[in-house]
Amino acid sequence: MTMTKTNLSHELLEQLENHMQKFSYGSSPEELYEPISYIMSLGGKRIRPLLTLLAYSLYRDDYEKALTPASAVEVFHNFTLVHDDIMDEAPLRRGKPTVHKKWNINNAILSGDVMLVKAYDMLLHVPEDKLAVCLRLFNQTATEVCEGQQHDMNFESNKAVLESEYVEMIRQKTAVLLGFALQYGAILAGASQDDAQHLYDFGVNIGIGFQLKDDLLDVYADKAKFGKQVGGDIIANKKTFLLIKAKELAIDGDKEELESWLSKVDFDKEEKVKAVTALYDKLGIKNITEAKMESYFERGFNQLTTLDVVNQEALLALKGLTQNLIEREK
Amino acid sequence: MTMTKTNLSHELLEQLENHMQKFSYGSSPEELYEPISYIMSLGGKRIRPLLTLLAYSLYRDDYEKALTPASAVEVFHNFTLVHDDIMDEAPLRRGKPTVHKKWNINNAILSGDVMLVKAYDMLLHVPEDKLAVCLRLFNQTATEVCEGQQHDMNFESNKAVLESEYVEMIRQKTAVLLGFALQYGAILAGASQDDAQHLYDFGVNIGIGFQLKDDLLDVYADKAKFGKQVGGDIIANKKTFLLIKAKELAIDGDKEELESWLSKVDFDKEEKVKAVTALYDKLGIKNITEAKMESYFERGFNQLTTLDVVNQEALLALKGLTQNLIEREK
Repeated sequence: MTMTKTNLSHELLEQLENHMQKFSYGSSPEELYEPISYIMSLGGKRIRPLLTLLAYSLYRDDYEKALTPASAVEVFHNFTLVHDDIMDEAPLRRGKPTVHKKWNINNAILSGDVMLVKAYDMLLHVPEDKLAVCLRLFNQTATEVCEGQQHDMNFESNKAVLESEYVEMIRQKTAVLLGFALQYGAILAGASQDDAQHLYDFGVNIGIGFQLKDDLLDVYADKAKFGKQVGGDIIANKKTFLLIKAKELAIDGDKEELESWLSKVDFDKEEKVKAVTALYDKLGIKNITEAKMESYFERGFNQLTTLDVVNQEALLALKGLTQNLIEREK
Repeated sequence: MTMTKTNLSHELLEQLENHMQKFSYGSSPEELYEPISYIMSLGGKRIRPLLTLLAYSLYRDDYEKALTPASAVEVFHNFTLVHDDIMDEAPLRRGKPTVHKKWNINNAILSGDVMLVKAYDMLLHVPEDKLAVCLRLFNQTATEVCEGQQHDMNFESNKAVLESEYVEMIRQKTAVLLGFALQYGAILAGASQDDAQHLYDFGVNIGIGFQLKDDLLDVYADKAKFGKQVGGDIIANKKTFLLIKAKELAIDGDKEELESWLSKVDFDKEEKVKAVTALYDKLGIKNITEAKMESYFERGFNQLTTLDVVNQEALLALKGLTQNLIEREK
């Protein structure tokens, strides 16, 4: 298996960026449309539309036809970022002010609403005989993403979150959109229902794996490579897989120490990160999380074995992109 | 022309209420779905889906098939109410706490988002060969509604709003959705493109007229019948057609007096309402607004003269419903 992005991924990404840059969402009133151009131009890896184009390319070589439909997934994703950032009171997104900080909350609500409508408008660019099925799957996915976000918010005020509840939350909040992106590309290219389902399952499983990787990196990343503060989740008592697992496994003195750090209001940040990380180490949390993550990646890759693809280069590119994301250090 | 709702309007409204009550938006997490049931159960006149069903009934007698598609318009309308109420910091809606007051802003944002997705999901219940055209028109309408809301917010901080800008704002914010509701019903029933366009234009024109009526009632309603404080717009310096027109026409002492009331921070509410109303009277604002309103109603009704309808009872019902709304006193 190749470990780097192939030329196909590069080509698709370049075409996609060109295509998205040329896309006009609207112009007046500018308070409504400038935030859309702003958030869309902040960059990001464009993983979701790239997955759509790669899945499409497994079966057909005219991916140009899928550029607008693929962009719908990226617009939807960015809509969720704009509204989630309001809810999470996040000041920064990709190192820049969030929309509700740069403009205001009302602009961020309304621009986000228009983005969701624009995503549906881009979906209209699918072939007419595929519109109903794409719309149905998109609606189902969008609903689950919102449900996941609500569960995530509920978890913040919910003392005891089970591992299974956490995994279900990240499945909804982040993984189903990766699954949809792939399934959608396959459907647009006329793949069999079986293949489309396998690609969906691949996306959901690697999506859960990616979130566990995020949780791990936040604690165990190489400071020099990570690009943001290591231990941010620990400082904020964020209910990640690591913390949920640690709370489940810690007993006696470890349990007391963990609870004590979680309830402290005044603390030295570095000291807390060091102490909680030491507890994680003692409890073997890193290995447990890695094993869980690997099992999702394996389950994901297993879905690819029975695909009936036309273009093997695209399959290599899909595997390569995924492998790069698995091995990322930030 | 009949001046009361016909039996058909009553029948459609009853069927629609039954249908919407049975509709399940989802259940878990409850913080996401309870606000949807709540806002949808607060009532209202259900004008928009009723217009869809009436337009459908002009051409076909199996309106049952249009109940779910028609409900999509009501769900969309209620989505805009939930998000607009956040932006306007409104504490009450139909005499009950708004969603963001009863729950919180985050719940209101996210429940609203899901409502928009659910509206698209209900739109999927149109016949597949009509899905693309309905989706395209719905997206265009939804975009204009958001643009209208942004213009409305901009007007609050914009000192000089022209009459033409105000009419364009209310066209987008409220009238196009009435136009869409009618056009959509006609399309679903297989009406000609001409008829669908005439019904759209009817809806937009009466929609503008209805908003002018709202502006008028807020100042000139019969206190005993109005059900809320007369003069609320005057107290809040709301840029209605009446105020915009008064600012345009007032000169010398009248102009100074009007500007003085607009800039006062501490004032007796009753005194301000009385003084500004007296200025409106002196400037003939009531007559000017009524004439403008009537011209929109006339332009609207003119659209109905060339329709090629099958069911005359439905046309009478549509005219009757509109006439009742024109003559409403609250």
